[in-house]
Formats: sequence, C-alpha cells, structure tokens
Amino acid sequence: MSAVGNGNNIFWHNCPVGKPEREKLLDQKGCVVWITGLSGSGKSTVACSLSKELHARGKISYVLDGDNLRHGLNKDLSFSAEDRVENIRRVGEVARLFADAGLICIASLISPYRRDRDFCRELLPEANFIEVFMNMPLELCEARDAKGLYKLAREGKIKGFTGIDDLYEPPLNCEIELRQNDGVCPTPCAMAKQIVAYLEEKGFLEA
Amino acid sequence: MSAVGNGNNIFWHNCPVGKPEREKLLDQKGCVVWITGLSGSGKSTVACSLSKELHARGKISYVLDGDNLRHGLNKDLSFSAEDRVENIRRVGEVARLFADAGLICIASLISPYRRDRDFCRELLPEANFIEVFMNMPLELCEARDAKGLYKLAREGKIKGFTGIDDLYEPPLNCEIELRQNDGVCPTPCAMAKQIVAYLEEKGFLEA
Repeated sequence: MSAVGNGNNIFWHNCPVGKPEREKLLDQKGCVVWITGLSGSGKSTVACSLSKELHARGKISYVLDGDNLRHGLNKDLSFSAEDRVENIRRVGEVARLFADAGLICIASLISPYRRDRDFCRELLPEANFIEVFMNMPLELCEARDAKGLYKLAREGKIKGFTGIDDLYEPPLNCEIELRQNDGVCPTPCAMAKQIVAYLEEKGFLEA
Repeated sequence: MSAVGNGNNIFWHNCPVGKPEREKLLDQKGCVVWITGLSGSGKSTVACSLSKELHARGKISYVLDGDNLRHGLNKDLSFSAEDRVENIRRVGEVARLFADAGLICIASLISPYRRDRDFCRELLPEANFIEVFMNMPLELCEARDAKGLYKLAREGKIKGFTGIDDLYEPPLNCEIELRQNDGVCPTPCAMAKQIVAYLEEKGFLEA
C-alpha cells in the first residue's frame, strides 16, 4: 500500500477495553520509570531491584533495558549519533505502549541528552513519566567498570563514550534523584524502595 | 559509544523476576496471537473483541495494531517493500517483549508474506506464536471497504495494495482459521470465542 498524501491511508482503531479497564484489572496505573545515568551508575541493577520490589507487592512491571533491546528491536541500529537518537526514540515509544497496557514500565538507558529524554516524556500523559537520575560520581562508575568499557574508552578504543569524551546532561527537573549519602552508595534495594515510595505516594500502585 | 567489533560492547542483563514469575502473578501465559488477513477482513474488530473476551475472564491482553503503530513506533517507515518488512519486524519484536512480560499480545496486521510472519514466529518459544488467518473472500473485504482503500486501489491511486496488485500469501500451517460458514461470516464475538477456546485448551489462560 503506497501512501496517497503520506499517512492519509493510516487509520486509528479504538478498542472497548482501554487503559483504565486494564489498570482496574491490574490494580495499578500504567507509567514509565525512566532511569538515566552514566554507564556503571547502577541503572540495570536498580531496574531489576525495583521490578522485584513491585512484584513482591503484586504489581506487574517490565524492564526495557537499553543493552538488551540492542539484541532485538534495535539490533539494526549502530552507535552513530543519529542511531542513538533513534534507539532512544524507539524505547520511548515501546515504553509508552507498555504504560498504555497498564504496566509499570522501567526503562534503563544511559540516555545522556536532555532533548531525547524530554522527547520520551512528551509521549506520555503528564505525570506518567518518572525520570530517575542515577547521580553517581564518574569516579565511582569508572572504578566499578563492570563491563570494562571505561578502560577501553580511556585507551581510546571506544570513541564518544558518555562521561569520557561525550557529554552527559544531568536532568534539570527529574522526579527522583538517587545519590550517595556521605560518600556511601545506598543499596540497590534501598534505592528501589525510594522509587516504590514515590509510586505509592503518587497513586500508581492502585487503580 | 562506538562499536568495537560491532556488538562486543553490548551486554545482557538478567532480572530475578522473569517471565514465569510474571505469569504466576497474572495467572496466564504470555504469548502472541498474530492475526493476518486482507484489509477489511476484520482483523482489528476480532482483535478488539478478543481483548474484551479475555478481559471479561480477568486476563490481560494488549492489541498491537499495524495501523496504530504507524502513528508512533513506526512513523518513520514508508510503504516501500523494505519498510514494510521492517514494520512487521518491529511489531514482531515488540510482540515478543509483551509476551515476555506475561501478556497475551494480539498483533493485527495484514502481514501478507509468509517469510515475514515466520520471522516473527521464530522470535518466540515454540507454541507461543498463534497465527490466526482471517480467511475472508476478497469480494467480501472489498464490499465492506470501510476505509475506502479498495476503491482507491482499483482506481490506481494506491499501488501495491494487497489483494489487488500485490500478493497475499495465505498461511500454510496456521493455528486458527476464521472463515465464513455457508457464506455467512461469524460474528466478531463468535470468532473471538473460537480463539479463546484455543488459548484455554492450550493452557494459556492459567499460569
């Protein structure tokens, strides 16, 4: 089907079972918890921990991990500037679908630029996008270096690595900031509970 | 982050809460119901009806509609042959994520070619891809022409329209075939119930 007037042939179908009905069934509200931060800041660990905490409360969540999606939906994308934007756009669009399905969607991506994160925020109804900033010092992330990527970046074997030779733009108005207390990083479980408390307070854990 | 040896820097994260845990919480099994057929064959209607039937049984499903996704995730894609393949690939990948989340994902797309549908089937564990063929006569679909697209195709204003000047390859081994009985099309509700009966029989409606 070729496009006559590009897009004129695309229709929109509405179903009688919508987001509110699914939310009632699940006794929760669909939303996106978007975890941003440097490589090694603990995004994936917190995402899993949050998923576990929510599950223990009978709430259904799903983790969209930037790395994992590059094995599937986004495996056609490179690490060029353009493809990184597209990578984040697609994760944002899929996160929107999961929130619409009534799930608490936990997206875990470096997502270094404000404009890309804001694009994803704007896909969702107000307040349904909860930006979580893993505000960990570069030194801590680099010292962890679980994937050995900082080492490669320092050696110049990886170019455009966030925090080394590419910019990370910290959120200006994120909903949740996770950081060290007196130089000590909270446990993943403690950080997850901080997010759960926010979700509870805002009414996402009931229909 | 540029790719050293393309893909070597992409890691896989596993979470303690996986598909089986989510399925137990939801008391159902995640799967993909893939509805294929001509434009006007009733795919979207059956998808919605199925969603309603499942919801009435306390089961959570989510409809991925080919048309709707072209407003979001796939809005960068045209109707060129290449982009239509990519359109289906992405829907398949997203459907896989929803099934992994534990939902009954209902994908509704013309998806005219066997190789594209088979690609999506192979993304999923055996038996978790349920292909539903809307086997309705072209004459019926064209007579309905709810979107006015057949008229445009006959007038040559749309090129490569499935069923008119582009091929539809019927499934060879689909799980479910929906068709007329003695020249009468079953109601959407009756067709949805046929799919529900299949899901029940195969154990998808319990954990």
